[in-house]
Amino acid sequence: MPVSPFRKLAPYAELARQQGKIVYPLNIGQPDIETPPAALAAVRNADIRVLGYTHGAGTESYRRKLAAYYQRTGMPVVMEDIIVTTGGSEAILFALLTCLNPGDEVIIQEPFYGAYTAFAIAAGVSIVPVTAHIKDNFALPPLADFERAITKRTRAILVCNPSNPTGYVYSRAELESMLALCKAHNLYLISDEAYREFCYDAPYVSALQLAGAEPNVVVVDTVSKRYSACGARIGALVTLNKAVYAAAFRFAQMRVSPPGLGMLLAEAAAELPESYFDASKAEYQARRDLTVARLRAMPGVVCPCPGGAFYVLAHLPVDDTEAFGQWLLESFSYENQTLMLSPANGFYQTPGLGRHEVRIAYVLNQTDLTAALTCLEHALREYPGRTEPLPSVAKTAAVLTA
Amino acid sequence: MPVSPFRKLAPYAELARQQGKIVYPLNIGQPDIETPPAALAAVRNADIRVLGYTHGAGTESYRRKLAAYYQRTGMPVVMEDIIVTTGGSEAILFALLTCLNPGDEVIIQEPFYGAYTAFAIAAGVSIVPVTAHIKDNFALPPLADFERAITKRTRAILVCNPSNPTGYVYSRAELESMLALCKAHNLYLISDEAYREFCYDAPYVSALQLAGAEPNVVVVDTVSKRYSACGARIGALVTLNKAVYAAAFRFAQMRVSPPGLGMLLAEAAAELPESYFDASKAEYQARRDLTVARLRAMPGVVCPCPGGAFYVLAHLPVDDTEAFGQWLLESFSYENQTLMLSPANGFYQTPGLGRHEVRIAYVLNQTDLTAALTCLEHALREYPGRTEPLPSVAKTAAVLTA
Repeated sequence: MPVSPFRKLAPYAELARQQGKIVYPLNIGQPDIETPPAALAAVRNADIRVLGYTHGAGTESYRRKLAAYYQRTGMPVVMEDIIVTTGGSEAILFALLTCLNPGDEVIIQEPFYGAYTAFAIAAGVSIVPVTAHIKDNFALPPLADFERAITKRTRAILVCNPSNPTGYVYSRAELESMLALCKAHNLYLISDEAYREFCYDAPYVSALQLAGAEPNVVVVDTVSKRYSACGARIGALVTLNKAVYAAAFRFAQMRVSPPGLGMLLAEAAAELPESYFDASKAEYQARRDLTVARLRAMPGVVCPCPGGAFYVLAHLPVDDTEAFGQWLLESFSYENQTLMLSPANGFYQTPGLGRHEVRIAYVLNQTDLTAALTCLEHALREYPGRTEPLPSVAKTAAVLTA
Repeated sequence: MPVSPFRKLAPYAELARQQGKIVYPLNIGQPDIETPPAALAAVRNADIRVLGYTHGAGTESYRRKLAAYYQRTGMPVVMEDIIVTTGGSEAILFALLTCLNPGDEVIIQEPFYGAYTAFAIAAGVSIVPVTAHIKDNFALPPLADFERAITKRTRAILVCNPSNPTGYVYSRAELESMLALCKAHNLYLISDEAYREFCYDAPYVSALQLAGAEPNVVVVDTVSKRYSACGARIGALVTLNKAVYAAAFRFAQMRVSPPGLGMLLAEAAAELPESYFDASKAEYQARRDLTVARLRAMPGVVCPCPGGAFYVLAHLPVDDTEAFGQWLLESFSYENQTLMLSPANGFYQTPGLGRHEVRIAYVLNQTDLTAALTCLEHALREYPGRTEPLPSVAKTAAVLTA
């Protein structure tokens, strides 16, 4: 069981804070956006005498409103297709336990959300990675790469869209080609849509909107990012495949019911108008633009412009981003400030990959984000493990590939 | 993946309610006791701007207060020994994932809580049952039975104390003999203490209070029953074994953090004085006494007197308690009322066992409980599948064994 990649540096951050440094946490997808006050008020105003178990798939009233939310976004989902889960986390676990038997394989494009590894271990299944590359902006790798990865133990392909950690948003054509591949090989398509509301350059396409999605697609969702309510621990598993639903529901019954107070919050949030997202989306987009522009201006940094989520995966001109991340916390400060990054090696399964990349979560307000990126700029100049000369020394900007 | 045993009859209960019958739910451990108002107020009064992730092991403030609660009950536990989990459910899953590898075996005395089967399947491990018998009041079976069940794949013995579904409370001597057995064979002792506050005849002994518990014992706990807060989904895994803790913590990191709102409730509950339990304990004890007395007065019923929890496992003079349970909902009513029971076959792993037993959860107020038991009394007279003559016919009371 690996240590969570975005928590690996936590002890060093603790020490840095104890030394009095300001540490900007760009390592974890914990947004600073306000949780909708109306959603919090729903919890505050609930008249509860006994906080009891609910239906194993979640309360009917929440599932009804969540289905209405999905319908507004163009997904053909009714209440009976939804199992409310304890965060997106539990939905991932249930999806793996349901679609795969122990020893089976799921194909996931790497870099991928590090916790998938943990869920796969917990479910007794193996992840087979297909590598996406920074030079391609982390777009869908050629289907031939997926074909080669399929074995007789393969049961599913898991896609995170928009992607954590790359922020890449799959086009409808990419999703269709993946679904066609799944159909050709009789595989499930597990679609983690945690960041579905945060697409900046094109409208979002859910895997459940594709023609022929019914038998193959299992959507994993969460309110954590959508409503900045990570602590509510409310997610959902959504599928139109009745057999998959029935099997997943048995796992849901095992833990009796999802968190009751969080469901009250999520239910009120599901009733918010679509315009609710305007402000948070605009804010994230401004942060993305700021982050990408600042990173691209730093010599030796390569940074694709992600279309969604609130992450960028960037190449840094350093020997090892894990060592760099530790150095940032232990040995560096700029005006008594430093930052915490996620070394990207935790997002790759193939050994050796990601050593020069970091994930940056642009979850702080623009003032703090600017300060954090200024720290990073100074740090990249000072870091002893820098792998290429600075322009002031070399006079020509080096062009890097992954 | 089996259907949850206490939900198997749910569709029939739904139909009975649609027909206008009052259905008393004695099938599920969902107490009707009020959730402490002070605990609910803590959620209502919390000043939350962003409901974010917490530490993977739960907030420091809650763990500190939970440790203080444990210390008040005589357990040598500090904050660093606790991982807050999503209900006792997640603690069971983490305990199995941590103490066992896929393919390993855990020994559990049957009858046992049906969801253990689901957790074992999810963790990829096998349960090896050792049968306890109603004629022994479901006390600890002879250690020789456990010795015989141990193989080279055995890694743990799981004990539920007080027991769900039997209500049996293990004596200190029984616990000590189990710990000694675990030590002799290098096994973990996983102790599910969900009902620890509900012991009516003797003070409770936690497995963590035993001499030498440190390396072997992993306690699974929950606030669900203790504070009548099942919907909060807050439990805990507690161990003094640092290596087990570290491994379990990695699984905890996988799902980032436990439910935040529930933790606020649990934290306030942990500060309640010990006297808080006086009223709920007295109420449950009165219900137990009522339930046992009424059941024992019904011809052909065999009912041990359980020392704890809020369940009795009783033998009924019927051909099959699952058929009887269905008949109660489909074909029977007394003054337009009927009841829902848990057929005990779902609590046994050995095929064929429990066919004549039911679990009754005495979670309703004494008026409803009395009405429900009166229904049962009438139903046992009318049921076509009755397996022994009524005294009015036979004139002598039959003595039954399991």
